[in-house]
Amino acid sequence: MKTRLFTPGPVMVPEKVLLKMAEPVFHHRTPEYENLFAKINEKLKKFFMTDGDVFTLASSGTGAMETAVVNVLARGDKAVTVRGGKFGERWDEICRAYGIETVQVDVEWGRAVDPEEIKNALDANPGVKAVFTTHSETSTGVLTDLKAIGEVMRDYDAALVTDAVSGIGAHELRPDEWGIDIVVSGSQKTIMLPPGLGFISVSKDSWKRIERSDLPKYYWDIMKYKKSIEMNQNPFTPPITLLVGLNESLDIILGEGLENLWARHALAAQAMRAGVRALGLDLFPTNPSNVLSAISIPEGIDGGLLVKTLKKNGIFPAGGQAHLKGKIIRISHIGYLDEYDVLSALSGLELSLKEVGFSFNSGDSVKAAQEVLADR
Amino acid sequence: MKTRLFTPGPVMVPEKVLLKMAEPVFHHRTPEYENLFAKINEKLKKFFMTDGDVFTLASSGTGAMETAVVNVLARGDKAVTVRGGKFGERWDEICRAYGIETVQVDVEWGRAVDPEEIKNALDANPGVKAVFTTHSETSTGVLTDLKAIGEVMRDYDAALVTDAVSGIGAHELRPDEWGIDIVVSGSQKTIMLPPGLGFISVSKDSWKRIERSDLPKYYWDIMKYKKSIEMNQNPFTPPITLLVGLNESLDIILGEGLENLWARHALAAQAMRAGVRALGLDLFPTNPSNVLSAISIPEGIDGGLLVKTLKKNGIFPAGGQAHLKGKIIRISHIGYLDEYDVLSALSGLELSLKEVGFSFNSGDSVKAAQEVLADR
Repeated sequence: MKTRLFTPGPVMVPEKVLLKMAEPVFHHRTPEYENLFAKINEKLKKFFMTDGDVFTLASSGTGAMETAVVNVLARGDKAVTVRGGKFGERWDEICRAYGIETVQVDVEWGRAVDPEEIKNALDANPGVKAVFTTHSETSTGVLTDLKAIGEVMRDYDAALVTDAVSGIGAHELRPDEWGIDIVVSGSQKTIMLPPGLGFISVSKDSWKRIERSDLPKYYWDIMKYKKSIEMNQNPFTPPITLLVGLNESLDIILGEGLENLWARHALAAQAMRAGVRALGLDLFPTNPSNVLSAISIPEGIDGGLLVKTLKKNGIFPAGGQAHLKGKIIRISHIGYLDEYDVLSALSGLELSLKEVGFSFNSGDSVKAAQEVLADR
Repeated sequence: MKTRLFTPGPVMVPEKVLLKMAEPVFHHRTPEYENLFAKINEKLKKFFMTDGDVFTLASSGTGAMETAVVNVLARGDKAVTVRGGKFGERWDEICRAYGIETVQVDVEWGRAVDPEEIKNALDANPGVKAVFTTHSETSTGVLTDLKAIGEVMRDYDAALVTDAVSGIGAHELRPDEWGIDIVVSGSQKTIMLPPGLGFISVSKDSWKRIERSDLPKYYWDIMKYKKSIEMNQNPFTPPITLLVGLNESLDIILGEGLENLWARHALAAQAMRAGVRALGLDLFPTNPSNVLSAISIPEGIDGGLLVKTLKKNGIFPAGGQAHLKGKIIRISHIGYLDEYDVLSALSGLELSLKEVGFSFNSGDSVKAAQEVLADR
């Protein structure tokens, strides 16, 4: 049996991208690399929908998050962190590691932050310099309404920063139009690459903040990347095979078109949710993201055992994190997968639910999903 | 014509490693990954010759250098930095980025630091907490005598930290025996992988320093890696394809045996140096490393043109950096190459020298190198 990855990163990578990355390594201080990197940077701007710069780091997504914090803030600054899941909490942890005083907007896991909550935090704490949010919270499957947050923040002089590590590409995200200053992401999500690259987009307006930043940094110093990118270079040795793969993946994604990409993720998510509900199961979040479906484990079912059984059946989901361990399973709709993979996931879910003792009408989930797919 | 990479990183990667990395991506929160990572970590300890831990970062080598600085030092500490090339200077830049007062031991580029110079700096600056050195300085081709430095430092309570990014594997390096506390390296050198992984080895005695460190950090926080490695995990998503490749590369290297590996690099370097000298050229450094041969460009020859001509002829060297630009060329002996590649490099050097107008007896360099190889 094949193993199909339905984790919200790492994801399945197209064979042609994997094979491209297996070509001989070449040197980066060459016109060949500079041409490649120039093309990649143009494509990244399209993917991130920004006229600003998009920088590529050799790091995981967390490295890109830290880069955002240490470049946008200065010593003694205050920041708002929205904590509605593991990755929202990470913003808070990074800020505090640098001595930043944080105003924590705590949101029950599974619920999306209300833009008014951010407005209230800004009103109650004048002088806040940045608001750290999570576009699609991977730990809970919640989508954040960044457009609405951008709107309420227009009257405040605080940077809007978002972790779109998994969300970008799966959902419409228009940083320049919506007033999002910094977007961070990683390679192992909708970009369909192995892990190892972090991305950070920087709006044109953000440079005044970056220039006043005096938090200590070297590898994360975005000014070094800015200076280098103007010569189509990186300040430090780039992970060349991943960049070669990135160029391929971006061609696939941009060839499909961003609106089609969002629509494809929306359809997959809709089919998955219809299938899940047809079995009598509930989605965990109130505002589910198209990145992944977080499914509540019904009473009496052993969530850990369900995850194990799914894996045995060739469908590789993620379990719950932190206090959601055993309470939810997460099945993603990102990476190199299509509508038949959604049907496979649901079929595997049915087989596995049966094995762990949950009752439902066999075939209902794939039937419901098939109807959504046929209706598109 | 093939292009042969003779840059001191990135290097040529064995085909079997490249193809292994093209296998489907799997998830890292699995027993499969944990088994792999446990094996890798055991192999890394052998390669780094330490009973301590070796941590793998998703970063370039510079990230591993920064990790050393921010974990070994605390606010207000003083450190010695040995500045005898671009990478020695980088230690100083990183320390200063974190507000560390540095005692700069400046060494003329091309000369190796005398251990007495470090002793004098320690005597003149009581309370220095760490000495930052460069094992093989890639910008000049100089080898540092770390064993001797370890000896003079035994009477001081300062950590000995070394950047062995390119040197480890090419030269004998026994951190535990020689009193080296921290060794950093990267994937794209003697480990024969693409760039994208940084390594840091931490001696057992170093934990007391790390525990008192209060420099701000998150992604570079070695305590997070320590906690994770005990469960054969990484704190952040690992670059899984590079780790799969790492396992393969370490098998090749350790299968050969470290002493054989050092001997192979020594032989290649010796053959290269004999060939270079047979043409009437000089090595730039006084204490040349086996990682690379930095060759002084003779009077009247255009160094930039020589580099270009070599590339055109399929031999890809590195030029000089900073004030050595145009003054030296650098040909490495690391990566997936053997003695015939050394002959190829010399042959390409002869062809190219002829094209740029340097006079010598054709064939002298390959003859001299061949004699060294035959004598082994």
